[in-house]
Amino acid sequence: MSTAPAPAHASKPKPFVLYTAGTPNGRKVSVFLEELRAVYGEKVGYDVEKIDIGRNVQKEPWFIKLNPNGRIPVLVDRAREDFVVFETAAILLYLEQHYDPERKLGFDPVSQPNDYSEMLQWMLWAHGGVGPMQGQANHFNRFAPVDIPYAKKRYILETKRLYGVMEIRLTDRDYLAGPGRGTYSAADINVFPWIKAHQFTGIESLDEWPSLQMWFGRIEARKAVQDGLAIP
Amino acid sequence: MSTAPAPAHASKPKPFVLYTAGTPNGRKVSVFLEELRAVYGEKVGYDVEKIDIGRNVQKEPWFIKLNPNGRIPVLVDRAREDFVVFETAAILLYLEQHYDPERKLGFDPVSQPNDYSEMLQWMLWAHGGVGPMQGQANHFNRFAPVDIPYAKKRYILETKRLYGVMEIRLTDRDYLAGPGRGTYSAADINVFPWIKAHQFTGIESLDEWPSLQMWFGRIEARKAVQDGLAIP
Repeated sequence: MSTAPAPAHASKPKPFVLYTAGTPNGRKVSVFLEELRAVYGEKVGYDVEKIDIGRNVQKEPWFIKLNPNGRIPVLVDRAREDFVVFETAAILLYLEQHYDPERKLGFDPVSQPNDYSEMLQWMLWAHGGVGPMQGQANHFNRFAPVDIPYAKKRYILETKRLYGVMEIRLTDRDYLAGPGRGTYSAADINVFPWIKAHQFTGIESLDEWPSLQMWFGRIEARKAVQDGLAIP
Repeated sequence: MSTAPAPAHASKPKPFVLYTAGTPNGRKVSVFLEELRAVYGEKVGYDVEKIDIGRNVQKEPWFIKLNPNGRIPVLVDRAREDFVVFETAAILLYLEQHYDPERKLGFDPVSQPNDYSEMLQWMLWAHGGVGPMQGQANHFNRFAPVDIPYAKKRYILETKRLYGVMEIRLTDRDYLAGPGRGTYSAADINVFPWIKAHQFTGIESLDEWPSLQMWFGRIEARKAVQDGLAIP
């Protein structure tokens, strides 16, 4: 065991550990973290622990202690006594509250309560709709051991219906929440990786939803988004 | 048109309009409102507009203007310039922020940030898991025009798995969020009406999950919960 003092250039441990995998839910958080890093730098740096979901590592006892639901992603905040956060939208809201003092990716609940509520509404809409339903579309169209046309169609149609709801919202807006034409926020980041996966799900293009398609292009062009999508 | 002044005893309009139906999602909000009313009285009174979802009234253009997702419940806050809130968990968080100054049903994000985050985590867990998956179980076991054993089983098993996650959380706790053994909060109310519907879904009893069962009994015994379940 070395007793030598750490060299002056030794870096402090990064504040966060992100347990994740290359799925839309994992990427919601890595995109958000990269956007924070673009503003605040290494103060919001994070270590990535890749979880092999193909081998069900997220169901192992040590992981269940972090998240009893046995799902990635999970964030551990070393800077706040290893506080653990699971559920993607809850992770984004946690990071927004504690690590985005300039509110670059969200709204202040006290001084901008209506924008804040609209952000929450669209986050919850995606968290309870797009994620679970597009996930079922993926299951029946990609992974299920049996071919069930009724279920395939049910979830593709529901995913398309949900894309249509975003189209309504974005017809006269650039982003889902915020005054006027809206401001890029956690509401957008929370759903973007699912829309990004539309071809995997079996939806060939976004042509049916022109406003959604423009929104998608606007977000995909961001460097932090590309960086976040590359993790892990 | 009458020009006479309103009589002194004329009651002010109630602050909220709740567009709802007799479903677990509708009841999350009516239970929460009844709990608020038990503390704050008619300051948080509400008019109920029953939406006939059997006739798809929630898909009519006037309703889509309130909620482009075409789903109940929707809350309109007359006291805050008819601000509209959709998505059940977003409605609870909105009511909690603006109408529960004593934090009887939640936690203060600034002074109790970890309890607040845990409440959010469990709300999002239910909003993205129990609701959508138990909803699919109901579809395939109750409503689908075709008999698909694979899908019936898939969603019943997933619902049971999620009940098992609550069992893990509640093994040494009375409520989902809050310090120590926890405090009754929006996290509990947000999932209770789905657990209440377990028999409808085809899960005969909660015997498999003794801690969940005790939690259920504790909440079901509350007068405000019974009042909220009776709406509309």
